[in-house]
Parts: sequence; C-alpha cells; structure tokens
Amino acid sequence: MENKEIIIDDTYAEAFKTKAAHLLITATTKQLAHIAATEATGFATSFIGCGAEAGIDQYIPPEKTPDNRPGYSIIICQNKTEDLEEQLLERIGQCVLTAPTTAVYNLIEESDKQTNLGFKLSFFADGYQTSYDENDKTYYKIPVMSGDFIIEENFGITNAVAGGNLFIMAKTQQTALLAAQAAVEAIANISGVITPFPGGIVASGSKVGSKKYKFMNATTNEQFCPTLKDEIDDSQLPEDVNGVYEIVFDALNEDIINEATQKAIDAIKTVPDVVKISAGNYGGNLGKYKINLIKQ
Amino acid sequence: MENKEIIIDDTYAEAFKTKAAHLLITATTKQLAHIAATEATGFATSFIGCGAEAGIDQYIPPEKTPDNRPGYSIIICQNKTEDLEEQLLERIGQCVLTAPTTAVYNLIEESDKQTNLGFKLSFFADGYQTSYDENDKTYYKIPVMSGDFIIEENFGITNAVAGGNLFIMAKTQQTALLAAQAAVEAIANISGVITPFPGGIVASGSKVGSKKYKFMNATTNEQFCPTLKDEIDDSQLPEDVNGVYEIVFDALNEDIINEATQKAIDAIKTVPDVVKISAGNYGGNLGKYKINLIKQ
Amino acid sequence: MENKEIIIDDTYAEAFKTKAAHLLITATTKQLAHIAATEATGFATSFIGCGAEAGIDQYIPPEKTPDNRPGYSIIICQNKTEDLEEQLLERIGQCVLTAPTTAVYNLIEESDKQTNLGFKLSFFADGYQTSYDENDKTYYKIPVMSGDFIIEENFGITNAVAGGNLFIMAKTQQTALLAAQAAVEAIANISGVITPFPGGIVASGSKVGSKKYKFMNATTNEQFCPTLKDEIDDSQLPEDVNGVYEIVFDALNEDIINEATQKAIDAIKTVPDVVKISAGNYGGNLGKYKINLIKQ
Amino acid sequence: MENKEIIIDDTYAEAFKTKAAHLLITATTKQLAHIAATEATGFATSFIGCGAEAGIDQYIPPEKTPDNRPGYSIIICQNKTEDLEEQLLERIGQCVLTAPTTAVYNLIEESDKQTNLGFKLSFFADGYQTSYDENDKTYYKIPVMSGDFIIEENFGITNAVAGGNLFIMAKTQQTALLAAQAAVEAIANISGVITPFPGGIVASGSKVGSKKYKFMNATTNEQFCPTLKDEIDDSQLPEDVNGVYEIVFDALNEDIINEATQKAIDAIKTVPDVVKISAGNYGGNLGKYKINLIKQ
Repeated sequence: MENKEIIIDDTYAEAFKTKAAHLLITATTKQLAHIAATEATGFATSFIGCGAEAGIDQYIPPEKTPDNRPGYSIIICQNKTEDLEEQLLERIGQCVLTAPTTAVYNLIEESDKQTNLGFKLSFFADGYQTSYDENDKTYYKIPVMSGDFIIEENFGITNAVAGGNLFIMAKTQQTALLAAQAAVEAIANISGVITPFPGGIVASGSKVGSKKYKFMNATTNEQFCPTLKDEIDDSQLPEDVNGVYEIVFDALNEDIINEATQKAIDAIKTVPDVVKISAGNYGGNLGKYKINLIKQ
Repeated sequence: MENKEIIIDDTYAEAFKTKAAHLLITATTKQLAHIAATEATGFATSFIGCGAEAGIDQYIPPEKTPDNRPGYSIIICQNKTEDLEEQLLERIGQCVLTAPTTAVYNLIEESDKQTNLGFKLSFFADGYQTSYDENDKTYYKIPVMSGDFIIEENFGITNAVAGGNLFIMAKTQQTALLAAQAAVEAIANISGVITPFPGGIVASGSKVGSKKYKFMNATTNEQFCPTLKDEIDDSQLPEDVNGVYEIVFDALNEDIINEATQKAIDAIKTVPDVVKISAGNYGGNLGKYKINLIKQ
Repeated sequence: MENKEIIIDDTYAEAFKTKAAHLLITATTKQLAHIAATEATGFATSFIGCGAEAGIDQYIPPEKTPDNRPGYSIIICQNKTEDLEEQLLERIGQCVLTAPTTAVYNLIEESDKQTNLGFKLSFFADGYQTSYDENDKTYYKIPVMSGDFIIEENFGITNAVAGGNLFIMAKTQQTALLAAQAAVEAIANISGVITPFPGGIVASGSKVGSKKYKFMNATTNEQFCPTLKDEIDDSQLPEDVNGVYEIVFDALNEDIINEATQKAIDAIKTVPDVVKISAGNYGGNLGKYKINLIKQ
Repeated sequence: MENKEIIIDDTYAEAFKTKAAHLLITATTKQLAHIAATEATGFATSFIGCGAEAGIDQYIPPEKTPDNRPGYSIIICQNKTEDLEEQLLERIGQCVLTAPTTAVYNLIEESDKQTNLGFKLSFFADGYQTSYDENDKTYYKIPVMSGDFIIEENFGITNAVAGGNLFIMAKTQQTALLAAQAAVEAIANISGVITPFPGGIVASGSKVGSKKYKFMNATTNEQFCPTLKDEIDDSQLPEDVNGVYEIVFDALNEDIINEATQKAIDAIKTVPDVVKISAGNYGGNLGKYKINLIKQ
C-alpha cells in the first residue's frame, strides 16, 4: 500500500526555540476532559496572531493519572516566559477551572523555571481555598458550584521547539488534504508534540514578510500556490501538483520533532497520488534547528 | 418523563449589552467546517479573561449556503467595537484562513456598523488577491497553498445580549451535569445564540468581585458551593442539593435569550433528581436586561 | 466554487420497492440517543448479506419530540414485512431497550400495516409492565435497572424505495472520497432518507451475479474499477479517472429519492477534480423506479 | 478524588466460554477506519437476539500496522465456530469490504482453528483477484471501484470469555450512568476486551428466563429495578439507590476479564454518590468462570 513514486525533497524544516508548559487535564469521563482541553487550546494556531501555540498532546488513561480518572495532556507554547505565564493563567482559569469535573496537574517534573499557577488560581476561592501535600507536591482545592476543583501548585516551564513542518504536494487538493490528515494522525500518537493549526493542518502556508506590503509580517507563499502556477515565474510546484497542504508541529525537544517528521513522512507515503514532500525554511538564518527530511 | 417536582425560582437572569458579529464558515465537508469553527471560537468563554466570548451557533446545510457547501454559523462577541474588529481579524485570519477548504461569509444583512474584514485579510495574498461582485456583494479571492480562499468584504457588527444564565441544582453533581448538557443541547437548536463555556457549561459560577481580595474581579459564588454548605451561614442551597451547574448564553437579541431560557428550562425538566432551577443576577443594577425564569 | 467541468451522465439509477419502519429514539442527551441509534442501525448496509438496510435519518430537537428530549429518527428497511417485524424486535430489543435513558416512538402516522412492537417488547418486564394512553396512543412502561423504558405500542410499516445511487468518478481516489462525503452530508439533511453503507459510502460497488462463479449473487463491478482499467476491454472509466465511489440511499418514497439525487449532485459539483457523475442500473428490468440524474 | 464510601459486594460475576476472532481494520485515516469498525460491530450487543457479540477493541497507530496506516482492532464473538465464520463473512464482506480505503488483517497468531475468510471474500473479485505472500502470510488483492481491497487469507478463531459484568448502584440514575461511562473508558484502554452493549453500557440488565412467561429466555432483573423497589418484596437495592447500570465485557481470556473488572472498579470509585458495586451470577451453575470483585 506504499506510494513508491513520492519524491522526498532533500531539504530541511527550519524550527525555532520557544518555551512550553505541559499540563494534564483530568475529568470524570474522557469526553469531559476532551471538552476542557479543546477549549483551553483553541485560538492558538500561530504566534503571528494568537497569544500562544497550543494543542492536545495525548489521551492519558485513568491508570496513569494522579486521580485515576481519564485525562488529556496539553502543550502551551510562548516565546517569552512571562507571556506564557499569562496565557496559562487565562487559559486554565477561563477554560478548565470553568469546565465540568476537571482537575489540572503538572507534567514537567524537572525544569529551571516554574510558575505557581495553582497558587494564583486559588484566589478564585475567595478565602475558602485549602491546600494539601501528597507525594511531595502541593495541591489546591477550590470550592466551586459543581464541587471542588483540584490543581497542582507549581507548573514547570521548559525550553521547546516550534515550527517543525512539512509541505505535502499532490495531484489534487483533496488528496493532499487526506495525506495531511494521515500525517497529523501519525504525529498524534507521539508523546510530547502538538499540531496547533485547525485539525493540525495549514491550508495557507506563509512566507516571512511581504514583497508588496511593508505592514505585513507574513503573506501567502505564492511559489507553492496552485492557482498561481501559471501566473508567476518562480513557482516551485511540479507540473502535476494541484493541491498543497502544510503541517506544522511544536514539540518538547528536537528529538521529538525529528521523530514526528519521519512518522509523518511514513504516513504520507501510504496515500496514492501524492507527488512530493518538502519543507519550509529560511536559509537557516532564522531558526536554531534544521530538521532534515531525509535521515542523514 | 417530566420531573414534576422541580422548583423554578421566581427570579431573573441579569444580562448585558454587547456587540456581536455573525459569520458563516463553509468547507468541502461538514467536519472540515466544524474544525475551523471550533478553533476560531476557542479560548473564548468569558470577557473576564478571554479576548472574546464566542461559539458555534448552527450547522447550515449546503442548500442554504452561498457556495452550496456545508457550513457552521458562529457568533463572536466583544463589548467594544474596535476590540471586536481586532478579534475578528485574528480569529478568522489565524483559525479559518488557515483551515482546509474554508470560505467565510457575513450573516448580518443590516447593521449600523460594518467592518471590512475581507478587505483587510486580502493583503495576505501579497498583491495576488482579486475581488469580484456577486448578488450586490463584494468577495475577495486569496490564493493559498491549498487553492483559493474566499471571503466576503464586509461584515456587520450588531448590538447583542450577553450573560443569559440558569443555575441547575440537583441531588448529585452528575445529575446536575447531565441536566446542564440537556439544556445546552436545547439551546443549540435555536438560531442566534451560543453557549460560550466549555461544552456550554460553567462548573465554577462566580460572583462579581471578592469579599477578601481587592485585586480579584470575580470569585467563586460560595453561596452555591455544595462543599461549603455546612461551612458558611448564608448558603443558598436546599438540603438535598449536592451539585450545581450554571449555563451561560449570549444571543443576537433579547427575544432569543428569552426563548433559550424557556427551552433550557423545558429540557432540564426532563431529568429526574433535579431539585431547583434559579439564575444569577446583581439586583438589576449592572445589566440592561432582566430575563425572567417564569414567563410573566 | 463550482466545478463546471463535471460531466453528468444522462442515465438513471434503478431503484426498488421495499418495506420500511420509521422510528424515533429519544434520550436524556443527544449523544446518548445517537449511541442507541448507531447500534440499532449497525451491520445493516445491504440486503445481500445483512438482515436489514438501516440508518439514522435526522436529529430531532427536544421541542419536536413527544417527551421533550433530544432524539434521532431511524429508518429500517426489509423486503418482506415479516422479516422487517423480526428485525425491529431484535434491533430495538437488543440495541435500544438496553441503551441508557432511551424511549422509542412511531413516526409513521398512517399505514396499511402496523406491528405491535411495543406490546411484544413489554413482556421483557415479566409482568411488571404497565400501559397508558396519551393523545390517542398507547404506550408501555417497562421497569429496567436504570429506571423505566417507554415505548409506543404500534409502529407503522410503509412502502418505501431502496437503491437510489450515484457513481462519483474523480482524478484521484481521495477526491472521489471527499466528494462522496459531501454528497452524503447533503442527503443527511433531507428527512426520510438514509445512506446505509459505512459512512454512507460504497467503496466496492457491485454488479448482479458473476461472470465466473455461479454461487455468487453479486461481484465487483469491474467496468468501474480503476486498477483494472488497462486490463479489461470494456472499462467504463474516462482516461483521467483513478478513483470511483458509489453512494446508495433508501427513502420513504420516490420523491425523496429524487430530491436526494439532485442535492447530492449539487454537493458533488462543489468539489474540484471530480470528472463525472453516473449511476447504476440493470437496463430497467429489475427495479420499479428509474431515477434520472438530469431532471426531465 | 476517591469516593471512599462505596461498598464493593463480596461476590462474583459469572462468565462463559465462547469463540472469538480478533481482526485489524486499517484505512487512510483514523476516522475512516473507525467508520468501518463501527458498522462491522453494530447490532451485536448480546447473543440473545444478535448474531454475534462484537465491539471495537483498540486504536492501533500507523507504526504498529502491517500497512503503516491507522487502524482499529475489533473482536467478534459467537458460541459456535461455524456461526462465527458466517458472521465474519457477512460482517467483513458487507461492512468493511464496502468501506472506503480499508484493509483487514488477522491478529490471532496462534490458534487451533482458522477460517479462510480472505480466500472466501476474494471471489467477490469475479476472477480478477490476485494473491501474494509477504512475511510468511498470504494476502488477497480484490479490485474494487475505489482501488484495491487487501485482506489476509486466514484468520484465527480462539477460545474466549463472555459475560464479565458489574452492577453500578448510585443515588441517582445519572450518577450511575456517568460511573458506567467511566468504567467503560477504563476497560477501553485494555487490549483484548470489548464492551458490546450501546456505549458499553446495559440499561436493562436481565435475569435468565421469566417468572411469568414461558416463551421468554430473558426478562428484567426486577430485584435491581429502582421503580419496583417499593412494589416487590425481594428488592436487592439499598435504600438510597435510585439508578443502576450494568456493564458487560467479553475478552480473549480470563486474565483480561479479571483486569477489566479491577480497572472498572477503580474508575467507578472516582465518581461521587455511587453507593455500591455488585455483579450478576447464576449461582455458579451456568458459566465456567467466576470473576471475583474483591481480589482473593
């Protein structure tokens, strides 16, 4: 079932340093945990226009959570530590504290920097908060209308990697789309990585800046636009390509970005009528990491 | 199947004036439209800590959309027009323009105020955008990697109503939760109203300000917290109530808030072991609208 | 967004007479009703190897159901009335009576033939069943471990139409697939029609009988198989077609089959890179109905 | 978050010998594999009225499947080998061969008995089927309208265990329901076990035979019906129990049934207002296995 005609471009994705928090949201049922995790990581596709890049990492089964309930791990990224702290306060305070039956735990055991998110949120209890220690950690209990909301006191902030990416070029737009979905699903199964765009997929990959408008930080990547193929001189699209999707992923470290890249390529290879896989970079001048598509 | 023992409190929900946009997101499939709509309305539960209150309004079948594709209508609210314009630019630009196969249309035909969201987003095309007129409206075509993104030029901004609400008190937390889900589903079927909290439900209803911490704008509503029932003197919870959930809804006008209130009450009445339905208000001094639970 | 290059074959789908029941399953929440409806209509794609053709028809909001709870209407088809009665007894008895919080109502008000499904199922109560009349109908209350299961006494059996169909031919398999999904979604919005195959789509459309094996009632439709295009002499596939999906639909009457056909064609037209739409027939000798693709 | 007041009945669930097949369904995307797996395991809650007991076992990520695509493992049970073979032929032939982009693999490596399901289904290709060997296994390639359908030749049939069960008794019906959902989710994470009822839950647990009707094989378990508590003399329900749900599970062996039982109990313990956990047995005379609730 392998599409053996796919061309893997001998290039690299250029990825960047960022800061990340890794949290676990549990609830009475998997669905309730998913609802909270989805809301908390919404409107978080790109640093360009969102306050954070965020997404659901993994489903964590009851036997692996501190309270024996099902949960989802999420990753929230921001380039500045203080901005990340603010995003955590708002996203957990507005989207998880408010969600039915939830509790929140830290998943970064060791980190240079920590934020006392649980302590800060505990003031919501207006004096009725209590704290307790268990397994060398401190937790806050916040009485709410539905019962008690539990949150760990401290959450680690770690160095992470943003901007892993692949370009999927196919004979039709819909084929590129299903291949992108397959790639996102392959990445979804890896712990420590998220695909922050809608459904994990970018329909409108961009270049840095603009050729025409000085006020634009990012504009369409016209060299990869199928409907401009015959209109511009420097199209990068092969003759038989009529649809291109990009996938973008952020991870807790460079190894995971590499693993995600390879697993995504393997998944894309299962889809017939994909023509080529490439990636976006800026000549290596902007980002710290070069993620090769072809393993060296 | 009606729970005839429910007490409907003879009180009112206090609701507020706000501004709203009403947009339609279409895509090749219902699922793709849903993914974009979910991302665009994420992290948008409450003005207290989010940039907007937003949610999915209705599924719009292919035959009722301008491009004959399935879609979802969404509502995005903000109290200030200029903040709403910024939220629209960021949420549609980051979460819908980037989503596979989408297009975006205005659903507010008549309004005092309009924002030229489509015009602004068209600069992303870096000079390759084109516009065309159809049915007396102007649309922009933005070439992207997956094909062309279509967006209407102008979007209406209308006066709307935020903060419709109900308190659901039940013998157990889980019963209150399922009754809240039933209420949210009843509201979901009404056009022009959203339930912006996670899954439409608020687990941690709040009071304005704080008794103890001056820096807090909102804190837990301790009078309705089951775990504080025996600890405080002024609990508002009946003896047999051990779980309380609030639902909150924003709508395009007061009539819809009233309709949503009644439909939600009807739905809650179908759930056994719910004890009482009430609502949150501030003595009528803060909000413009008083939404009675019992029809006058 | 219309694909103007699609060829609509000037042919017809050949459809058949069948018998159908139309039932409403309600529950405390939409999700619970959906779970029961899905189980009850599973393993029901084709009369060739399943006991019935069945599927979910519509979501019915709380305000339109007898018990003010959300529900799903389903359609179950069989060619013989007595076989349909048996399927109803087993599918409702095993998959809905057993499902959390459900109730079941008849949706066919007038019919020559009725089956007393509720009466038969009431024996499960082992003498503890009770019946009551409301709005000129009789209902049974069956005590179960979770509470009481309610079911109407009589259910209508009506003449219906099975085997509406379309062939979707596209440049790639994945494009045909997404076009088929769009077609299924367009049909999903029409009341009184189901698409009984998995996800509403047939990946392996068949011809009647076999050229080679006498014991086979149905075999692959090789004239429409892309991977046999160069191997056989009588392929019906255009040069640039590499993927074909069929959609099949059953409806309560011929008008609905016609409406579904047109709505599905409209939906398919929105997908780029679809090449041709056709339909399956047997020269008009087997089925009672000829459903034209191009309106006469 | 543990409900420490739950009473665990010192009893056992009585489980039975059965036969099972364990199959893997893969597809281009997780969702497409899920659609096929759901249809193939529908209408399969109980041997009493369904042709099989069946359900989805696990999501299998691309890196663990033979074709590097996402998949779902399913289990199909029947008491007689020949009936199981017929169910496999019909369910895979009607619900998976017909589903978009699917392939089917055997997951039982060693077994006394095998069925050549792939060989039998290959006749659908009407002479155009081909077979090939890979890793010491034989596969069939069946040309269909969407491309090629791949299926392994031989599938193992193994001895298995049916009828693991728990009774969940709670203060309200809705609390018992959410606890049952939590139990089903805990079991879902264990490989080799399914919960065949709708959503994994039984709302209408039964006793063998009938006190009143000789023609009934199974009738309501009135001793556990909340609405009959005051009407019968031998109710087994504690005073404060108003809702009871049963969960039922089938597994590939007795160890897995025991593990599922313990994991389910752990999950139920996280839900407040559950009163008691028990199980169904017939005095140990009918089934081969006694599954103790309290580990010996």
